[in-house]
Amino acid sequence: MTAPCHETTVRVRYAETDQMGVVYYANFLVWFEVGRVELLRDLGFSYREMEKLDDCHIVVAEARCSYKKPALYDDSLCIRTRVLQVRRKTIRFAYEVLRSPGAELLATGETLHVICNRSGRPKSLPEKYMKALSSPAGGHPAKP
Amino acid sequence: MTAPCHETTVRVRYAETDQMGVVYYANFLVWFEVGRVELLRDLGFSYREMEKLDDCHIVVAEARCSYKKPALYDDSLCIRTRVLQVRRKTIRFAYEVLRSPGAELLATGETLHVICNRSGRPKSLPEKYMKALSSPAGGHPAKP
Amino acid sequence: MTAPCHETTVRVRYAETDQMGVVYYANFLVWFEVGRVELLRDLGFSYREMEKLDDCHIVVAEARCSYKKPALYDDSLCIRTRVLQVRRKTIRFAYEVLRSPGAELLATGETLHVICNRSGRPKSLPEKYMKALSSPAGGHPAKP
Amino acid sequence: MTAPCHETTVRVRYAETDQMGVVYYANFLVWFEVGRVELLRDLGFSYREMEKLDDCHIVVAEARCSYKKPALYDDSLCIRTRVLQVRRKTIRFAYEVLRSPGAELLATGETLHVICNRSGRPKSLPEKYMKALSSPAGGHPAKP
Repeated sequence: MTAPCHETTVRVRYAETDQMGVVYYANFLVWFEVGRVELLRDLGFSYREMEKLDDCHIVVAEARCSYKKPALYDDSLCIRTRVLQVRRKTIRFAYEVLRSPGAELLATGETLHVICNRSGRPKSLPEKYMKALSSPAGGHPAKP
Repeated sequence: MTAPCHETTVRVRYAETDQMGVVYYANFLVWFEVGRVELLRDLGFSYREMEKLDDCHIVVAEARCSYKKPALYDDSLCIRTRVLQVRRKTIRFAYEVLRSPGAELLATGETLHVICNRSGRPKSLPEKYMKALSSPAGGHPAKP
Repeated sequence: MTAPCHETTVRVRYAETDQMGVVYYANFLVWFEVGRVELLRDLGFSYREMEKLDDCHIVVAEARCSYKKPALYDDSLCIRTRVLQVRRKTIRFAYEVLRSPGAELLATGETLHVICNRSGRPKSLPEKYMKALSSPAGGHPAKP
Repeated sequence: MTAPCHETTVRVRYAETDQMGVVYYANFLVWFEVGRVELLRDLGFSYREMEKLDDCHIVVAEARCSYKKPALYDDSLCIRTRVLQVRRKTIRFAYEVLRSPGAELLATGETLHVICNRSGRPKSLPEKYMKALSSPAGGHPAKP
């Protein structure tokens, strides 16, 4: 049983490269965000509305990335995002960045998030998100 | 008689370069913003408080930049910012980006701004800002 | 007769917004770059190979943008890019940024570029690019 | 005995905030880079020359950041950078981001780097860097 997983594609922009001729390392975290948002969309949710209508902000508490191979300008990349763990007030995502075609693995990463209201106070993830993020594909819901 | 003018220094970051080995062009607009904010600070204002306390947002309506010479990684740059024109509801700034030392001119630019409240509706610039931005160094206040 | 024109879509990233709740102004220049590159791809060229194989770098000399309405987080945007003018050593592009659906115009812009080799020295645009950028859709090739 | 440590100051730019009203998480990695470069400068080295003259590129292999409290627009931040470990071919840095004044801890992080030549092939760190990064302030040079 695996948690909800999603693949989305980004094309490397010139703005994202640096003078070493590769993508600047901080941009992988931007792509992770794109991956999270598209995973949510795939589950039927818009993160925009999650913020606006449900006052649910997915605030980053931890982020890490391992860089295996450089991403290059104009590369078409697959961002593979997976829900690692869902608890009442936290979500953990895992990521893989792969170069298309060939699916060469460029980087892996993880982020941990705390659900907060608009003032930054932690709150519980509404039931509909809990449910969707934990299943039907599996996931790891909080133990009772 | 010249309008309020300010010089501030930025050091080029690796993140700001691209694979051509020079600073990516959009970053000059980021430095223009740094220039505006430091000019305001020099006049005794914090743009942070201008937004928070006076509900005054300096929204960009137009921006342009002419690139003369590339800015390079680790360059120490002088951002020279000048108030070109202040009206009730608009401000126009001019910029020069110079490489230190030697003051080699790398770029010039201009931005036009509309004063807005937090919902994006145009409003008049409070008197204290009008006054400070127009004088004592000169400036070009709105004609009656 | 109109010059080559191209439409490409970008989704606004969280990273591209600022605390005013709208897209930070410099990011429009990043999208213009995406527009240029996709226009070239549409004409059968990869800008990556243009740099690598033909030592042709499209260096920005001027950029400007007029901001009509804010772009918002998660907006799906259409970047409409058009070749305004092609000369031996310069290209001028025009851009429109529209919100989908509805095609609400958010911004317009222009950039002027000089063709340079990898050391930044101006050079002539190779014939195949001249031709493709000027026609069959029209364009404005350099007068003899 | 502690390794070389350095403090540098950055002012939060508007461009670095997002619509949650705080600094976007990827920007902490940009400040880490600023911290590394200023630590090197403090030791008498310019990273620009390290790349150009010694063909030494400090390529990121791993990065992580723990976010404790949000950084806000216009905050004056202290980036405290420390060499955690120096080996023949790798360097590990640790970072703290503190808000001035008051030294409130906003984030901590670590990066691991591989020394590479301009083609991205790992190489040994030249002796002068080894020495400076390991001492006189202590450091953790590779065991024989």
